[in-house]
Amino acid sequence: MDFREQLRKLDGLDFGGLYQEDFLLTWDKSEDEIRAVLAVADALRALREGNRSARIFDSGLAISLFRDNSTRTRFSFASAANLLGLELMDFDEGKSQVAHGETVRETANMISFMADVVGIRDDMYIGKGHTYMADFAQYVKEGFEAGVLEQRPTLVNLQCDIDHPTQATADLLHLIHEFGGLEQLRGKKLAMTWAYSPSYGKPLSVPQGMIGLMTRFGMDVTLAHPEGYEVMELTRDVAARNAAASGGAFRVTNSMDEAFEGADIVCPKSWAPYAAMEERTELYGNGDTAGIKALEQRLLAQNAQHKDWTTTEAKMALTKGGSALYMHPLPADISGTSCEQGEVETSVFDRYRDPMYKQASNKPYAIAAMIFLQKIKDPAAKLDALYAADTRRWQG
Amino acid sequence: MDFREQLRKLDGLDFGGLYQEDFLLTWDKSEDEIRAVLAVADALRALREGNRSARIFDSGLAISLFRDNSTRTRFSFASAANLLGLELMDFDEGKSQVAHGETVRETANMISFMADVVGIRDDMYIGKGHTYMADFAQYVKEGFEAGVLEQRPTLVNLQCDIDHPTQATADLLHLIHEFGGLEQLRGKKLAMTWAYSPSYGKPLSVPQGMIGLMTRFGMDVTLAHPEGYEVMELTRDVAARNAAASGGAFRVTNSMDEAFEGADIVCPKSWAPYAAMEERTELYGNGDTAGIKALEQRLLAQNAQHKDWTTTEAKMALTKGGSALYMHPLPADISGTSCEQGEVETSVFDRYRDPMYKQASNKPYAIAAMIFLQKIKDPAAKLDALYAADTRRWQG
Amino acid sequence: MDFREQLRKLDGLDFGGLYQEDFLLTWDKSEDEIRAVLAVADALRALREGNRSARIFDSGLAISLFRDNSTRTRFSFASAANLLGLELMDFDEGKSQVAHGETVRETANMISFMADVVGIRDDMYIGKGHTYMADFAQYVKEGFEAGVLEQRPTLVNLQCDIDHPTQATADLLHLIHEFGGLEQLRGKKLAMTWAYSPSYGKPLSVPQGMIGLMTRFGMDVTLAHPEGYEVMELTRDVAARNAAASGGAFRVTNSMDEAFEGADIVCPKSWAPYAAMEERTELYGNGDTAGIKALEQRLLAQNAQHKDWTTTEAKMALTKGGSALYMHPLPADISGTSCEQGEVETSVFDRYRDPMYKQASNKPYAIAAMIFLQKIKDPAAKLDALYAADTRRWQG
Repeated sequence: MDFREQLRKLDGLDFGGLYQEDFLLTWDKSEDEIRAVLAVADALRALREGNRSARIFDSGLAISLFRDNSTRTRFSFASAANLLGLELMDFDEGKSQVAHGETVRETANMISFMADVVGIRDDMYIGKGHTYMADFAQYVKEGFEAGVLEQRPTLVNLQCDIDHPTQATADLLHLIHEFGGLEQLRGKKLAMTWAYSPSYGKPLSVPQGMIGLMTRFGMDVTLAHPEGYEVMELTRDVAARNAAASGGAFRVTNSMDEAFEGADIVCPKSWAPYAAMEERTELYGNGDTAGIKALEQRLLAQNAQHKDWTTTEAKMALTKGGSALYMHPLPADISGTSCEQGEVETSVFDRYRDPMYKQASNKPYAIAAMIFLQKIKDPAAKLDALYAADTRRWQG
Repeated sequence: MDFREQLRKLDGLDFGGLYQEDFLLTWDKSEDEIRAVLAVADALRALREGNRSARIFDSGLAISLFRDNSTRTRFSFASAANLLGLELMDFDEGKSQVAHGETVRETANMISFMADVVGIRDDMYIGKGHTYMADFAQYVKEGFEAGVLEQRPTLVNLQCDIDHPTQATADLLHLIHEFGGLEQLRGKKLAMTWAYSPSYGKPLSVPQGMIGLMTRFGMDVTLAHPEGYEVMELTRDVAARNAAASGGAFRVTNSMDEAFEGADIVCPKSWAPYAAMEERTELYGNGDTAGIKALEQRLLAQNAQHKDWTTTEAKMALTKGGSALYMHPLPADISGTSCEQGEVETSVFDRYRDPMYKQASNKPYAIAAMIFLQKIKDPAAKLDALYAADTRRWQG
Repeated sequence: MDFREQLRKLDGLDFGGLYQEDFLLTWDKSEDEIRAVLAVADALRALREGNRSARIFDSGLAISLFRDNSTRTRFSFASAANLLGLELMDFDEGKSQVAHGETVRETANMISFMADVVGIRDDMYIGKGHTYMADFAQYVKEGFEAGVLEQRPTLVNLQCDIDHPTQATADLLHLIHEFGGLEQLRGKKLAMTWAYSPSYGKPLSVPQGMIGLMTRFGMDVTLAHPEGYEVMELTRDVAARNAAASGGAFRVTNSMDEAFEGADIVCPKSWAPYAAMEERTELYGNGDTAGIKALEQRLLAQNAQHKDWTTTEAKMALTKGGSALYMHPLPADISGTSCEQGEVETSVFDRYRDPMYKQASNKPYAIAAMIFLQKIKDPAAKLDALYAADTRRWQG
């Protein structure tokens, strides 16, 4: 698509609410705001693919705070920051004075002196991650207003206990690319289903983020999982409300087959039961190592009762024309490749490997778009100016 | 203040000694040199607040070497480096070959190939930190002179066993801002006092750095601590000499109340007894874990005898008009917030939180000013040029 | 040398094979390609020494992946990346999801979204390092061709089990500088000899890299080691073939004295026996801690039988005029300095310290030259343009 045609997608959208604000949950953002993020993400990709610099910062820091391991998201955030001209500075709590009684308010201000953006992953404990981010965001906002900070460091949620907005946005960009536009997704049947994994404790924020975002543009979304693997009620309510508003549909079932039946898109992925995650959060809080060990064993046994929830070729044959788009946020548990039995058969995974890698490759742009819209008052004009300036990113 | 008016503070000062030199101890620098650091720090802040780029490097590295945990100083150094256009590169001794018999001389040269500045924190062991830095600085100077290094990496002391110059400078900037100028500090009464903490082993370099710097501009400085908590004699001598030269005063007392009485500024903060720190250094040297454990218990018990050394509202009422400026380098042990009983009551801490955060926010500029003066031959002209160039730091 | 004269060294060389390709082994590269790396390395040094910016990237990432400790190479890679305008992003496997069943193919693509270059050190396990790099390079090449990656991240081998090309290239640059040109090395006698060390398991890739590269330009190379310390046969074959082609010589001996006799250059350095490294690789694979411990003891005992393989003044007296150039990749085991008895006497080491530091200082330029030639289609024109643009790296 022509670059200026791409920019025209921003015409008429009301997305001023993103400016100087945080990005914590997709459902806190209006439809126009989500559309703006999608349009800017693809515009930034076009700039880079055309070897044009997208720098909007001469200097400045992007702070990352990962409370859980990360490959994709860590490198996506680093890439997004670099693309825009910010230097990454990782906040490693182990090397800090957090243990010395430092409060969240204090840490938030102290690491943000020259921070334009802060990206946080805090997905391990139910009821904690989102709260931590909201607190952090509030504290630096107050720090900015009190004159402590010279700029307002905006926050990007890199995965909390409730939502994973950069993942869901990257996934939606993937669907837009695969199906030829956001409008083409209307009526498409998407199956977000649980899948068996021999490991345990995978975050709920992935399925929650998916049902929270994919229901906004008229898709027909089915959430499927065995009994006991319910996601947070809040997010099911969001999905139902979104579907009603967008003319789509949202339903929950306990049958993987039912979800796959006639699906255009399937997203089978393991996650932990919500109730168990709540229990784990409490056990961690009490430092109950024995209890955690016991819970882990119980959950693995529970998982093992549902080994039939796996993405086989037979399951894929149930989908529309037998050729639904298979998606996974990666890394996947691949039967016969990375484990004996897991979420997906090797032949299915391998067939969709390139598409999944492309799916993942949207994340740097999703993050960069969020930052861009947080920082730039007139994004269309600025993107146009970057295109026109035509500064080579790489003088090869 | 107008930017060019700010620059005029540099007029007539003789600060050429900072150029291409290290910054290890404030008392090794002349009064003019300290004045230059203060003036440049505020000029750099004005550039940034005005969204003007302060980059003086197109590329280059700033190396950090932290031998103790750090939040504020780590991010302040990163911010200062980024502000000036240097990329931060942390030297993590655990990932290096230091264990393979590498000497300090060798490490110093090997990590400095493209280093313009090196920031070191080494505050844990009495008699070690400053020596390490001085050696490091000498080795890279020799490496530069021998043609090994193409530039001379200058060193900034990010806290040693003797001084904490970037902290003390940030604190002095805070006083200048709060009282309306360096000249306004003449005759002001400052109480640097010990305070009870339930943890142990806090570095002496903070009080030592304070008495070493605050005595230089005519302030009336009192150092107060219980018997047994003496700071290094060397630094008391420096303070006494400074006070005599600047027309100020310096005294030591064993009464917190006496120090607070009529004070304009109070800085109550815990630190370890010097003798105990010497003992600890030896125990660590011998790998005597049991001895360290025993020392820790002994010190905590010693601390606990002085729980009355705490900053209560009653204590604050003793100060000038009951409203002295309360300062703390953070993080503080706050009674009822981060511990049962600590250095300061919650109500006092909370009342001064914003000022303390602003106090901390001077550190990136203090560090950047030191680097700027180490690297730029005619700082006033360069600052003026940066102002006039008016390159946007952020194209928002 | 005049800058443009330096550039003329590229005239007539056929080095197009480096463009958009990986740098894994020096013997995979043609003589012209090696000459181009050497010429560009010195040209980049001249730019920097002249305070001219060598940035060819406005933004972009250089990914480092170190599977072994590193000081010199880590900082050399960081310096090279920074010199060219790339931001370093370290991939710490411990903070990633590698443990979650992520394949090499997946990791390679996921960390490379905005990577222009990837530097890998993987030297610990015989038969693994080079294979890992070759796989990684192939996977990102496929990712680029499939449209997952917008640029092809080229790979630089920062030390594998077979070769250490950035070290060997830095060493060759050192010889060029010391002897006044590449052509001056023809016929020079170089002794690459084993030396006793009280530690064990030092990589073979250093001697292997040396004999693989130094034999290419007509030098007379002797590899000397005690029986049982053979290097990989493959690399001896490479050396023999190179020597035959270049009009030089290559021989292996079990006498340190024979190698030193009349040598112009001596490189005495410890390494582990190949067979033992193979055994260790298998023990690690089986998680056989007791076996590893036993092997270590056995190897240390084996080493101790050859304490006479050490660089004394008496040994140095055997060399040409008693004044051969002593080289070491550092850190060295220095008798009486870093250990009781090691690879070299203190007096010898100290006499050559500055030269060795200069030797090491070539590594950032060696790496930068490899990247430059991977990324720039017409390097001579680009270097000329950078010289002419005369953008100050440092506005001091």
